[in-house]
This record gives sequence, structure tokens and C-alpha cells, in this order.
Amino acid sequence: MLKDTHIVVVVAHPDDAESYCGGTIAHLTKSGNRVTLVVCTSGDRGSHDCSISPTNLIHLRKEEQYTSQHVLGVQEIIWLGYEDGKLAYQPELRDRLIRIYRQLRPNVIITFDPWKHYEFHPDHRAVGFAATEARMLADLPWICPELTLEGTAAWHPQEMYCFSPQDPNYWVDITETIDLKTEARLAHHSQNDFIHNETDRQQFIEMIRSNARKDGEDQKMNYAEAYYKVDDTDFNL
Amino acid sequence: MLKDTHIVVVVAHPDDAESYCGGTIAHLTKSGNRVTLVVCTSGDRGSHDCSISPTNLIHLRKEEQYTSQHVLGVQEIIWLGYEDGKLAYQPELRDRLIRIYRQLRPNVIITFDPWKHYEFHPDHRAVGFAATEARMLADLPWICPELTLEGTAAWHPQEMYCFSPQDPNYWVDITETIDLKTEARLAHHSQNDFIHNETDRQQFIEMIRSNARKDGEDQKMNYAEAYYKVDDTDFNL
Amino acid sequence: MLKDTHIVVVVAHPDDAESYCGGTIAHLTKSGNRVTLVVCTSGDRGSHDCSISPTNLIHLRKEEQYTSQHVLGVQEIIWLGYEDGKLAYQPELRDRLIRIYRQLRPNVIITFDPWKHYEFHPDHRAVGFAATEARMLADLPWICPELTLEGTAAWHPQEMYCFSPQDPNYWVDITETIDLKTEARLAHHSQNDFIHNETDRQQFIEMIRSNARKDGEDQKMNYAEAYYKVDDTDFNL
Amino acid sequence: MLKDTHIVVVVAHPDDAESYCGGTIAHLTKSGNRVTLVVCTSGDRGSHDCSISPTNLIHLRKEEQYTSQHVLGVQEIIWLGYEDGKLAYQPELRDRLIRIYRQLRPNVIITFDPWKHYEFHPDHRAVGFAATEARMLADLPWICPELTLEGTAAWHPQEMYCFSPQDPNYWVDITETIDLKTEARLAHHSQNDFIHNETDRQQFIEMIRSNARKDGEDQKMNYAEAYYKVDDTDFNL
Amino acid sequence: MLKDTHIVVVVAHPDDAESYCGGTIAHLTKSGNRVTLVVCTSGDRGSHDCSISPTNLIHLRKEEQYTSQHVLGVQEIIWLGYEDGKLAYQPELRDRLIRIYRQLRPNVIITFDPWKHYEFHPDHRAVGFAATEARMLADLPWICPELTLEGTAAWHPQEMYCFSPQDPNYWVDITETIDLKTEARLAHHSQNDFIHNETDRQQFIEMIRSNARKDGEDQKMNYAEAYYKVDDTDFNL
Amino acid sequence: MLKDTHIVVVVAHPDDAESYCGGTIAHLTKSGNRVTLVVCTSGDRGSHDCSISPTNLIHLRKEEQYTSQHVLGVQEIIWLGYEDGKLAYQPELRDRLIRIYRQLRPNVIITFDPWKHYEFHPDHRAVGFAATEARMLADLPWICPELTLEGTAAWHPQEMYCFSPQDPNYWVDITETIDLKTEARLAHHSQNDFIHNETDRQQFIEMIRSNARKDGEDQKMNYAEAYYKVDDTDFNL
Repeated sequence: MLKDTHIVVVVAHPDDAESYCGGTIAHLTKSGNRVTLVVCTSGDRGSHDCSISPTNLIHLRKEEQYTSQHVLGVQEIIWLGYEDGKLAYQPELRDRLIRIYRQLRPNVIITFDPWKHYEFHPDHRAVGFAATEARMLADLPWICPELTLEGTAAWHPQEMYCFSPQDPNYWVDITETIDLKTEARLAHHSQNDFIHNETDRQQFIEMIRSNARKDGEDQKMNYAEAYYKVDDTDFNL
Repeated sequence: MLKDTHIVVVVAHPDDAESYCGGTIAHLTKSGNRVTLVVCTSGDRGSHDCSISPTNLIHLRKEEQYTSQHVLGVQEIIWLGYEDGKLAYQPELRDRLIRIYRQLRPNVIITFDPWKHYEFHPDHRAVGFAATEARMLADLPWICPELTLEGTAAWHPQEMYCFSPQDPNYWVDITETIDLKTEARLAHHSQNDFIHNETDRQQFIEMIRSNARKDGEDQKMNYAEAYYKVDDTDFNL
Repeated sequence: MLKDTHIVVVVAHPDDAESYCGGTIAHLTKSGNRVTLVVCTSGDRGSHDCSISPTNLIHLRKEEQYTSQHVLGVQEIIWLGYEDGKLAYQPELRDRLIRIYRQLRPNVIITFDPWKHYEFHPDHRAVGFAATEARMLADLPWICPELTLEGTAAWHPQEMYCFSPQDPNYWVDITETIDLKTEARLAHHSQNDFIHNETDRQQFIEMIRSNARKDGEDQKMNYAEAYYKVDDTDFNL
Repeated sequence: MLKDTHIVVVVAHPDDAESYCGGTIAHLTKSGNRVTLVVCTSGDRGSHDCSISPTNLIHLRKEEQYTSQHVLGVQEIIWLGYEDGKLAYQPELRDRLIRIYRQLRPNVIITFDPWKHYEFHPDHRAVGFAATEARMLADLPWICPELTLEGTAAWHPQEMYCFSPQDPNYWVDITETIDLKTEARLAHHSQNDFIHNETDRQQFIEMIRSNARKDGEDQKMNYAEAYYKVDDTDFNL
Repeated sequence: MLKDTHIVVVVAHPDDAESYCGGTIAHLTKSGNRVTLVVCTSGDRGSHDCSISPTNLIHLRKEEQYTSQHVLGVQEIIWLGYEDGKLAYQPELRDRLIRIYRQLRPNVIITFDPWKHYEFHPDHRAVGFAATEARMLADLPWICPELTLEGTAAWHPQEMYCFSPQDPNYWVDITETIDLKTEARLAHHSQNDFIHNETDRQQFIEMIRSNARKDGEDQKMNYAEAYYKVDDTDFNL
Repeated sequence: MLKDTHIVVVVAHPDDAESYCGGTIAHLTKSGNRVTLVVCTSGDRGSHDCSISPTNLIHLRKEEQYTSQHVLGVQEIIWLGYEDGKLAYQPELRDRLIRIYRQLRPNVIITFDPWKHYEFHPDHRAVGFAATEARMLADLPWICPELTLEGTAAWHPQEMYCFSPQDPNYWVDITETIDLKTEARLAHHSQNDFIHNETDRQQFIEMIRSNARKDGEDQKMNYAEAYYKVDDTDFNL
């Protein structure tokens, strides 16, 4: 079982980590690994309620993310503060992630699969491309040479897992953490405006469980989260 | 059968609608639905004939589109006027489509599938991304806040269909409108420079029919147009 | 067997051609065809060795490419000189390739498949999009009108093959040129820092062979390179 | 006195022409010259009144501009439709003006002086740069080559005058048209929110007159508009 | 004497405020006014010493700025965190300043004069343009409409002063605060690498004094800081 | 008299150096100094003759520049190859000049004054800003850190002179080199399309002389070129 490993999870919005890999995160932290969560945007446009301003939404969603952090056992959250809905493909985001990878020197990266068909959210695709390219380029000392010059050496996170995968090839059993995943996801109250009563709430929980059941089906796992795993080394989530 | 529904079709060039979903459009307008066509570029570079200038081509292709509009029964055409061949991925196009969706409040969006492999035309991919992202983001009042501020409320087109799909999951039977589709496509004379005589013309018609036959084959339809359908609601094309 | 045909190969870095289509190139030049290689970046960041500067790396990799050129029989190399790792999707690169296609009037283009899943290198995707779009647009005289105005007429390379294909549909038998491919790839010494001794060297050669065997397996070829072929004409690699 | 000359006036917002060169325009049209007005933005953000939406403001300001057009005798208005407040320095605007200059072949250009110190409005500077650069570049057939290719020949507007000049060197006597200038400016009701009563109105008129008096002072003109004139030819406003 | 007024000073780097308007700031805070300092970049490249990394420089310069803040009596510092040397003319910076002006509702803005001839630092010009444009546009509710929508109303800082002015028209007597200005400037140790001993130090102090003497000369002030003042209202620095 | 000094002259087009500082260059090379000329664009659009293509113009103008180089005694020409008329303000050009300054380590920079009023050519302003900013930033080792990392140390060209100055403060006596300047300028035949006969030729020569006389008038020089000189050191042109 994986231990003493440092995993960096890169997502676009508060609540992405919970929805896509919350069970995996809880599993990892419980086993004695360190998880750092990088949230690229502030989720500041993510509400159908016109009476909550972006400024307030930023604060609200940070609070929600901290509650979820506690549930999942995440050690650290890094906020990049980009504006929600505006994360186009851009070198700046990639460079900031290269810096983070080189400074933290994690063993594993978890992020979006940017090739997922019909993934309509531009922020998800943008984060997927930036985070996966950053892993490859972080290993070359002449990329972001100022880091090399200041003594922050090149670094290659040994493994990478892309969630919401177009071509899944790896599954994490989350049977023991499906409840934590659900609790963490529900902590994002601002994203639950479709829940008006206990029935809605149970329906949403069942939907999360049903999706995880489907992902685990062929793997003989009760509940699973699916990934496209890149490179085979000694680590395994 | 679908009735009294408003469908917005978003394409890159004059003649895209006819080639990719002309049979569906004719079917919809005949059944009593309203179809608005958004043409993003003016098709001003789309000729192998160096003696027709872009300025003239714009006029010519508008006329051709109006002829086709009559054939297909399209209620309204909105011209965005971008330059042909230069539609890179850009937030401005998306914002203009968000405005159109919120103002027209359509029930259904039809557009390109931007994930289609080997779709080499950059304009097609750009329109596909912009039109599908716009549908998702149009629903959030803090995206394009000036619209909300001026009273043009957020809106979610309930369904979306992507033509020329990478992963088809929906087919429209166009057996009764294949002739209208063909007539509408042929109305774009500027795009028929490969037709030199009646034989060429029949060959082109047969190619259109053959493609539609192939799309309908497994669905037990004589002629069909294929789609990737997003979200299941009460509507069905 | 293909003869007297002009093939333009467009790659991102020195050593891409060898890795992805070196066997095909050798096969083509030996059969009496002309191959022009367009290398978009200088490969100036492609080293894990911090003591070789980008400036030196440019010279070093050019020398390596010339050695490989000799091995593969490539007639001409065109260097575009972009910075390694910074080839974002950009119209300028496409326009330069349109110019090259129109000036050289090749029959065949070989380049990256930009739709390849999990192709993490942004330069590879950027070159794939630019080179394939350029082929389509080079045929329209009102695209890059200055070329038409100066008498460099529109041109349509009749065929195109995308290597490292997402959906392979064509294979070239490289059984007779697998050794040349390997030798050409090994000529890029700066990219062989993982080879410390003869054992490593043999392992790398076996990896190249093993990949080519896998690609040829279902085609009853001993060694092959796989492609997505676009458009069927009289040519065949 | 100047006659039968074609003058193109390029401004950023509806009401710019009246404020900066309205007296000159009236003078020119009364003398038998043709004036075309190019308005680059729609002035859609130009209100302190939050209850008038940009969409409504566009219509309102067009109406106001048509009223003013009638007062000043302007023959034609060309609306470019850019968003108010967002006209950064950009090649696209310049190219559109080059096209207009070549198609209309005017003798004289009138526009903003982009070097005016403490001109804080970015749209004013952007229009000034684009309109003056366009005049110089419109004369070169290899700039915007598509126009040359389609037979719209290069053209050099013989003279140019920059209003609101940093270094004035030319003055137009507007003594006979100061009332028309004032009336035309007042026609832009949406820009008169500081006028609450007849006293305010008279004060504003006096301000316009006082500014024109100051500009004419050293030229022995009762009322004048000042310019930086570029190139000396047979024309003179 | 000005009292109970809120002044926002917008600069590009830590140490700009001290060099250009430190005496004025000390004068204002001593008289009972509130001064907020906005520092746009982190000054992270501002060292000739290659052994201090940008990361360390950020921390070092923040410390220096806090020491200076204490000397000058500045109430609040807002760090925007842009990269030093890369502040090109960009709408994003302007929008962030519009937000700050509307939220803080200051009476006075102090910033760079972007028209200063031979001001070679691009960051200085970029800040000057952004901060002065922001003042004009902050007054229009349809600019940055999300702020209006969330209830952060439009606001017009009544006065503006540009330091390092191309056309000075206003002077602040800093005779009583020249020592504080000098002390505050000297607190930026990282920027004093030309001071090797007490003689150098005295020379630098004399240079600061000499410049202030020159600025005050014609105004009959012992020491002054010069400005271009925009708009005349009841305030006066 | 200045000797053994290295001067880098940065211009936008072939023929700029001759027009603006050709007398100075000849004076410097005759006195035993080294002059390197950096030509940023290829001048490829600089013809009113539609029958000379940009491709041919590039070759033609290079030849003309080499002839002029011989006349003026310039040691080296560096061609950056940007497209004529498209040099917008951009960081890339500045970075390339920083690299050149650091590699060549010149004592003096000569370039355009980007603040010159009514300098309508965008390329001239772009080069002026890039070349003057590059001098300031080349001195900071954390700007373009890859250069520092590869051992190309920071460098500060001690003096800078801006020709075509808005605020002239320095003049070079070119009485002894006015003929060389004229000959060098005339060597750019492609730019002499207004010269149809010997009379035109003499008139052009007289115009060059007349301008130089005007520049020298108040300095008691027969012929001069004017500059804005930045920083006073031991050098003097």
C-alpha cells in the first residue's frame, strides 16, 4: 500500500477534487500519504444565484473547500486565484504549475484528462493541458530557467493519473471512502442549489454512488474512481 | 413529434448547415418549429477562383444562403461577420453566442462536434467549442454580467446536438427531406466548382445520399443525419 | 512503388522525424523520391544537462540532424527556428507552412496527428494542427493573398499521412529500413543521455524494434510505421 | 475655398466629431465638399445612468448621431461597431481603416492626435494611432495584399489633420458654423446628463464657445478649431 | 490644509512611491489623511545581484516596503503581485484598479505620468496608463458591469496627480518631510547596491535633496515634488 | 575623439540607418570604432511597385544594405527578419535585443526616439521602445535568466543616443561625412522611386543636406545629425 508519498492534485474549481477524485484522496491520506491540492480558479462565477456576488462567492467557496479539506485529510491547499470561466489555454498557468512541481517535488500528479470527449467546461480542459504539460516540461532545466538559476532544480513527478478519463486504464477502490467523498462533495453548499429537501439530497448521494459503482463494475470493486494512468513505476495509488 | 420549439443552429460558413444538418432543419421547420441560423464567418475566402474577390464572395454567398433558407424554411439568419479561415479559439465569439442564446432563449442548440477526429478546418472546431461552451456558461448570471445587469436573464438551452459527431448517439430520419437537403446544398453555387456537367451533378447528389444512407444504416432509416446528443429532456429532434 | 514524388515531412524537433517516420523516409528516398524535412523548433531546450546552453544545443542538434539526414537520404532541411517548448497554437506557423507548401508544391505531407490522446508535448500538437490545416488552406488563393499576388499559386498536396496516429488506417513496411531508422535516431546523441553503456544501447534499439513490430503485427509486416492516411489518390507511401 | 473634396473623419464615439471638429465639418459640407464619418465604437458604455442598457444605448446614440448628421450635413456614416472602452491598440482596426481609405479614396483624413498629453481615454488614442498609421500604410500595395489582389488599389489620402492637437499648426475659422457645432453636440442628449435646466444648458454652450475662442485667439479668428496638419498640398480645410 | 481625505497611490515597484512622491505621502499622513499604496509588481527582478533569487527578493522587498510604510505613515498596502519587467499595456491591470477605486472610493489618485519623455521603464508607463484610465472609466457603471451588479457602485476619484510629470503644473512643499522621504527611500536596502560606504550614502541623500530643490526652485519652496494635476476641485495636496 | 568603441545601431528597415544617422556612422567607423547594425524587419513591404514581390524585395533590399554597409564602413549587420509593417510593441523583440546587447557588450546604443511626435510609422516606434527598454533591462541578471544561466552575463551599454529626437540635446558634426551619408542613402534604389531623372536626384540630395544644415544651425556646424543623449559618461559620439 502506498505510503509516505507526496501527491499534488490540480483542479479548476473548488468542488472538482471531491467530484472526480475525492475517494482516492481520502484513501491516500488515510494510508499516510501527503496530498496538496492546487485550485486554479476561485470558482467566483459558479452560482445560479444572482444575489451572491463573485466577491462573496470567493469567500464562501474557500470556506466550503476548507471544510472538505478537513473531511478528506488534505494537508495543504494552494489557491492560484484565476477568474472562473476564463481559463483559456495559456503558458502562464503552465509555468506556475512547473514552479509548484519543482518546489514541492511530488511523486504523483492527479488532474483532469484534457482529451475527455464532451467535456464542455473550458476551465477543465485548460487545467488538464497545463497540469500534464507542466509535468513533462518540469523535468527540463532550460524550461523556466529562472528556477534553475535560483537553485530550484528540475523535477519529474514519477507518475500521473488523469481523472474523468477518455481511455480509462486504472481504477482506485474507494469502497472504504465513498462516504467521505460524498460528505466532502456535499460540503460545497453553494453548488447544491438543486437540493431542496432530504429527498433531493438522497438522490444526489445515490447518483454519486451509482457513478462510482459503474466505474468499479468491471474491476470487481464496489465503488471506484477511474483514471488514465501515465507511466508505470513503483507507485500505485 | 417536436413542435413549437425554437432551435438555434450555429455554423462556421454558409453551406455548413446544409451539408451537416440540412435534412434535420427541413424536418423541424415542416413540423412547425422555429429555426434560427447563426453563420459565424462570411465564407469570404471559400473559393478556388481567384477572380472572385472576398468582397464579392460575401455578397454572393449571402444570396446563396438566402436561397437555401427559403428551401429549408429557416425563419431567421444571424450573420456574425468573422473572417473566413481565421476563427481561432477566442472568448469573444463565445460571448456573442451567450448573448444570442440569452436573448432568443432557444430550447435546442445544434452545432459542430469539436472533438471530431481529423476535422481539419479550424473554423469548424472553433465554432464547435464556442457554441457548446456558450450553452453551459449562458446559464450562469455572473458570466457576461452586463447582460444580467441589463435584464437579459441567464438561460439554459435544454438540449444540444453536435453534428459530424465523433461518438454518434442519436439519429434523425431525413428520408422525407433528403431532397430538400440536396437542393439547399446545391443552392451554394460558389461551392460547386467541381460540378462541370450533369454527370458531376448527379455524382455529387449520389454522394450526399450515400453518406446519409450510411448514417441511417444501423438505425433502420433510409437516410439519416447523425449526432452526439447532450442531455435527455422532453425534446427530441 | 512510389517514385519521383516530393514528400514534405513537418516535425517539431530534431529527432522527431527519426522516431516517428524514419523508416518510411529511408524507404521513400531509396525508391527515388524527394523528401524535404521542415523542423519547426531548434530543440534548444531539449536536454536534462544544465551545462549545455540553449545556444550550444542549437548547434549540436543541427549537426546531429545533418548526420541523420545523410543516413536517411533526406534532400533538404528547412529550419523554422521557433523556440522549443513554446509552440502554442498560432496562425503564424500555419502561414509559414502554407508558404512552404505553395513554393515547393509537394505531393505528400507527413506530420503529427494532433488528435493523438495523451500526446503531452504541446509542440507536437501545435505542429500537427498547423501542418494539417496548412494543407487544406494552401489550396485557397484568398488565404495568404500576398502569395497569390506575387505569383505563388495555391497548391493542394494530394495526400497526407499523420504519424503517431490516434486512429491508424495505413502502415508502411519498414523491414528493410529499420536499421537505418535506428541509426538515424541514434545519431541524435544529445537525446541519448539514458544510454550509459552498450547494454543500454541494445535495450533502446530493441525498444525501437519492438514498437515497430507491434505496429506491423496485424499487417503481416515484420516492422512497420503506422499512419492515419487522409484522402486516397494514386500515391501510396 | 476647398470644394469637391472628399474628407473622411475617423472618431471613437458618437459625439466625438461634434466636440472636436464639428465646426470644421459644417464649414466643409456648406462649401460643397463630401464628408464621410467613421465611428469606431458604438458608444455603448457611455452613460452614468445604470438604467439604460448598452443595447438600448447603441440605438439611442445612433439616433442622436443621425440628428447631428443632418445638422452638420455629413453625407455618410460608417459604423464599425467596436465595444466602447475596449479599443486597445490593435492591427485589425487599422486594417479596416486601410480598406475604407482604399475604397473611398478620400483626399483628406481628420482624426485624433494620439500624442496629445493627458488624453486619458484609451479609445481616443487607439483611434488616433490606427487612423494615422492607416493613411501611411494604405499607400503600399503589399500591405493588406488581398485588397490589391481584388483590384482595390493602394491610395494615399493627400492630407491629414489631427484634432485636439499636442502641437497645433493649423486653425479652421468656425465663426460661421459655431452655432451648428453647438446644435450638433447638443443633439447627443445621452451625453448631456449634467444639464438639468436652461442655466446649465447656457453654461455648456458658453463653454463650447469659450474653448473655440481660445483656439482662435492668436489666429485673429472669433472661433476656431485647432489641428496638427500633416503634409502640405493644394488642399486646405 | 487637506484633512480626512483618502488618497490612493499606484506604483509599479516597491521604492517607486518613496522616490517619486514620498515627501507628499508623509505630508498627507501627518495632516490626518489616509493613504493606501497599491504596488503592482513584486519587484522580483530588481537586483543586479544574481545570488538573490526572485523568490527571496519578493520577501526582502516586502519587508523593506513595510519599514518604509512605517516611516511614511501609510495606512494600507495592496500588493497586486505582477511579475517585474513584464507589465505591458493590458486591460486586466486596469480592471483590477477600477475594482480598487470603486471599493475604496478615494478622493485622490497619485500615480506615474505615462507621457513622460524618456521614461524607459515599461512598467512605469504601463502603470501610468492603467491607473489614469481606470480613474476615468471607474465612473461609468457599464464598465466592469459585474461590480455594478454586485452593488459596488461607480465612483469618480475627484482629483488626480501624476508624478514625474512631462508638463508639471502643481508642486507640493516637502520641506518638512524631505528627511522622511530620504529615510523611507533608504529603507529599500536591496536597491542601494551603489552605496558602499558613508560617502556614497551622503552623496545619494544629497542627490535626492538636490532634485527636490530643483523642483521647488521656481515655486519658492526649499524642497518640492512636482506633479501634473488633473481637474480642480476643493482638494489640494 | 572616440576610438575603439563598439556601437550597436538598431533600426526598423534597411535605409533607416542612412536616413537618420548615416553621417554619424561614417564618422564613427572612420575614427576607428566598431559599428554593428541590427535591422529588425526585412523591409519586405516597402515598395509602391506591385510587381516586385515581398520575397524579391527582401533580397533586393539586403543587396542595397550591403552596398551601403560598404560605403559607411559598418562591420556587421544582424537581420532579425520581422515582417515589415507588423512590428507591434512586443516583448519578444525586446528579448532578442537584450540577448544581442549581452553577447556583443557594446558601449553605445543608437536607435529611434519612440516619443517623437507625429512619427506615424508603427515599426519606428516599436523599435524605439524595444531597443531603449532592452538597454535598461539587459543590466538585470534576472531578466532573460536563461542567458545568465548559460553564462552570458548582464551588460549595461554605457550610453544611448536616440535619433529623430523629440527633445534634441546632442549633435554630431557630419560635415566631413555628409557625402557618404548621401551616397549610402542613395544606394537603396528600391526606395528612390520618386527619382526619375538627374534633377530629382539633385533635389533629393539637397533635401538631405538642407535637413542636416537645419540640425546643425544652432550648433555652429555646417551639417549635423541631432540626438537625445541618455546618460553622460566618458564616451561622446
